[in-house]
Amino acid sequence: MNSILDSIIDHPGVTVETIEKVRDFITYKNVKKGELLQRKGDVNNDIYFVRKGLLRSYVIDAKGREHTIMFAQEGRLFSNIDTSAKKSPSTVYIDALEDTELEVFNKDISLQLPFLPSPILFYAINKVLLQLSSVQNKIILLMSANVSERYEYFKEAYPHLIQRLPQKVIASYLNITPQVLSKLRSHKKKAE
Amino acid sequence: MNSILDSIIDHPGVTVETIEKVRDFITYKNVKKGELLQRKGDVNNDIYFVRKGLLRSYVIDAKGREHTIMFAQEGRLFSNIDTSAKKSPSTVYIDALEDTELEVFNKDISLQLPFLPSPILFYAINKVLLQLSSVQNKIILLMSANVSERYEYFKEAYPHLIQRLPQKVIASYLNITPQVLSKLRSHKKKAE
Repeated sequence: MNSILDSIIDHPGVTVETIEKVRDFITYKNVKKGELLQRKGDVNNDIYFVRKGLLRSYVIDAKGREHTIMFAQEGRLFSNIDTSAKKSPSTVYIDALEDTELEVFNKDISLQLPFLPSPILFYAINKVLLQLSSVQNKIILLMSANVSERYEYFKEAYPHLIQRLPQKVIASYLNITPQVLSKLRSHKKKAE
Repeated sequence: MNSILDSIIDHPGVTVETIEKVRDFITYKNVKKGELLQRKGDVNNDIYFVRKGLLRSYVIDAKGREHTIMFAQEGRLFSNIDTSAKKSPSTVYIDALEDTELEVFNKDISLQLPFLPSPILFYAINKVLLQLSSVQNKIILLMSANVSERYEYFKEAYPHLIQRLPQKVIASYLNITPQVLSKLRSHKKKAE
């Protein structure tokens, strides 16, 4: 799917006029691999639809270590959750892990959202629920699994991402050091 | 707010007929303190609106320890996220921490949702984003804060909940033992 509009275009009751109205809100943005899209402390209402590429959110702790929170690949929505939900500044950084193409819904859409057609809002609910589900799974992983289980869980949950992610990002998502990850991988390989 | 309908009743463009149509989906349910609303493995599409009381989700690890994931107090929506997002069985338990009164939207609503009025869907998006924000904050807390910072953070994030929650639930949310929590509290008291 190359545009969020593809999600509603075939929906009964969605007219060409509606599609064009929604299209008016969309701008396009390209982000280079490694580029920051948002800093901690930013207040912005942009909502991103990933057409191509890969975004992630992360925090930096007092010791300067990165901790990866979540990913958004093609077809996912991503936003500054703190600002969207509570009008507060972002607690996280967002960067691009690959060259990424985005559709951007800008600030004004939050005023228009209640008047947007139901199918596109329903689509948005599903996408946000998917994020919530990933984040919930990450908490379960952090709280109750040992290091080897975390890695196995990650491989199962993100079979398509594991090849695309740098080792240090996987390690920062699992809350382990790259050295521990490397040991885990070579140990698993030997066992196969 | 005593009903999810209160969120749309004053919205321009929402007719009495619409309100009645949505009301047809709602049933009511009372849950006693300590009662389980959902077990791990359940597949159900119910969406709960908390009219009064307090729900929480949790997992049980291999050693039998409970880990609390999130809370839903008055005015919040709660659901089996795994089933809502991915049609898969629940990975968590949900129970009531107080006697709780719920509005329940049952299975059929997921088919009707795309046709529901935009304002109620917009309201739902905001509520799900709030959940996502809490869950993201919990990850940040688990990954990058020390035990004392976790407790301080929790007090700031949930000033209204901290008086209502049993100590062992707070400890299971912070991923510390009740003994460590007790030490933290008496240490903080002495410092005040």
